[in-house]
Amino acid sequence: MAVEKRKIIDIDDVIPSRDDFYVIGVFNPGVALYNNETILLLRVAEKARNSGGLCVPYFDNEKSAVGTKTFDPRDPEFDFRDPRVIHGKNRNYLTSMSHLRLARSRDGVRFAIDREPAITGCNKLQGFGVEDARIAKICDIYYITYSSASEYGIVENLSITRDFKSYEYRGAIFSPDNKDAAIFPAKINGKYYAFHRPSFSEYGKPEMWLAESDDLLYWGNHRHFMSVRDGMFDSGRIGAGCVPFLTDKGWLEIYHGATRENKYCLGAVLTDKNDPSKILARSRVPILEPDEGFECEGFFGNVVFSCGCTVGGDKVHIYYGAADTSVGLAAVELKDIFADME
Amino acid sequence: MAVEKRKIIDIDDVIPSRDDFYVIGVFNPGVALYNNETILLLRVAEKARNSGGLCVPYFDNEKSAVGTKTFDPRDPEFDFRDPRVIHGKNRNYLTSMSHLRLARSRDGVRFAIDREPAITGCNKLQGFGVEDARIAKICDIYYITYSSASEYGIVENLSITRDFKSYEYRGAIFSPDNKDAAIFPAKINGKYYAFHRPSFSEYGKPEMWLAESDDLLYWGNHRHFMSVRDGMFDSGRIGAGCVPFLTDKGWLEIYHGATRENKYCLGAVLTDKNDPSKILARSRVPILEPDEGFECEGFFGNVVFSCGCTVGGDKVHIYYGAADTSVGLAAVELKDIFADME
Repeated sequence: MAVEKRKIIDIDDVIPSRDDFYVIGVFNPGVALYNNETILLLRVAEKARNSGGLCVPYFDNEKSAVGTKTFDPRDPEFDFRDPRVIHGKNRNYLTSMSHLRLARSRDGVRFAIDREPAITGCNKLQGFGVEDARIAKICDIYYITYSSASEYGIVENLSITRDFKSYEYRGAIFSPDNKDAAIFPAKINGKYYAFHRPSFSEYGKPEMWLAESDDLLYWGNHRHFMSVRDGMFDSGRIGAGCVPFLTDKGWLEIYHGATRENKYCLGAVLTDKNDPSKILARSRVPILEPDEGFECEGFFGNVVFSCGCTVGGDKVHIYYGAADTSVGLAAVELKDIFADME
Repeated sequence: MAVEKRKIIDIDDVIPSRDDFYVIGVFNPGVALYNNETILLLRVAEKARNSGGLCVPYFDNEKSAVGTKTFDPRDPEFDFRDPRVIHGKNRNYLTSMSHLRLARSRDGVRFAIDREPAITGCNKLQGFGVEDARIAKICDIYYITYSSASEYGIVENLSITRDFKSYEYRGAIFSPDNKDAAIFPAKINGKYYAFHRPSFSEYGKPEMWLAESDDLLYWGNHRHFMSVRDGMFDSGRIGAGCVPFLTDKGWLEIYHGATRENKYCLGAVLTDKNDPSKILARSRVPILEPDEGFECEGFFGNVVFSCGCTVGGDKVHIYYGAADTSVGLAAVELKDIFADME
């Protein structure tokens, strides 16, 4: 498939949220159009400075503030061997913490990045930070879904904004563990719909589900939507990527699919215009796969992962996280996406 | 605590749903009062006859009917060593399957049990059967929550009845994996509430959560409600038991708590009358624990597990599953439950 792609935001472009933190990744942005600008809600992952891996950031629910916790490397309560997670007998801590940071652009390519976070972990379900925003615009209101992890599990949160200045928190919208929620930006036959991804299951696989709602706050009628495919780019796990958009053939969803070896690509699925549970076609091959250096090497290599795109005519601009480290931008023709679907 | 208890329904009391099935357990009934009778929705677990463990029942979604599948014990695709589950490379099968069976009684002790199932697995999310009903009566409508397992995970389903003759299926109300949902039988400050139990989590523990709703069909604002307690009867896992009921001290919920060694007891938690997320008191010791022979020995021993009770004055009649095999009935005084809470 003919794809133009390039890195547009890197770690050095982002100022840490605190003097004692440093940025280890800026990736997986949510995307919206607002006031003639392209808005990104970037996931910014930070570690505590001079930590040697033993000082970690977390949201302290009792103090209602982001704090740090320093560990004694000889403490037998904890296992420090995993660089990402400190495993405790009673609770775990992540070694890094993410928040959402706003960036804006007139041309959709060169972004001015805010100095302060837009959305940070702020309650007991967000102790390990907030991640991976998707933004659906419905009647001039922007519905932002984003995941958070804590000692209580992984939940998908909803916040609402009209101006990208103030954000109203509306709670965890699905029961845990759940992530990768993308709300359809319009009612379909009288109902709102959202893709979501139960992220851990005893019998099930990490696959895409569909939920419905009357008001975007309360959700039900959860149905399994789409499975992984043996031997293909999406054999290991799949989850919603971009907020779906309407084409003349139906709703198009750009999703992520990973192999069992954790190579993350992007594919597309087309659903019926009047029934989003009805799958009409699906990518035979990836729309986008990690093959550039910045996609193959990084905090978690061999990953392209998208939470949003913009569509103008036949052109889709996909904003995506590369290797959990930087932000890339890919331009794809709709006709090329459709040509590779079956 | 002074508890009178006895076994009231056993395997031999239940006629199998098909000639080629036999009953291996009748337990965990949902409870309601209807037309001056006590109604139980029993969980009836069955296996296929003469199976030698290699013929299993399941709901065949393509044929829309309960069927059986016979395995070749030499088939290298499957692992037959677990007596409960046949593990396949691509999908698993349970060796038994449950449905819900109605029983009715004038005195609440001697029950007439229907010959036919009331609710069976009937869609792709219920391939391994349906289990553990809780029944909340709201404005003359009975809301029945019950779990089901399938190759897609474990979900909590909702069906509605007015007469215990016809049942209207309203879908999976929470994202998987989830079980042990108990709906509060009244609005509280303008919202409906339900306890639920995310049953598998990467960071979280098997603990109780609270969700809210406007219409009982769509749910949101999921919050962690209550944790396990180290060193106590509920140190390993907890989940809602009975449908909560209002007392003069607040809402009382009889829940199950298991140790890490899988001994299942019943405890109680009291919440604020106007805010069910606010915990006022919790059992120091179990209300009920497995110590009789029929509670200690069975398909899964050392288990008392309740999905419903009736309350008259100061007396609570708790119907419960014993050892995943039979149904017991325990009579407890409310004052004794409160006396053991802290």
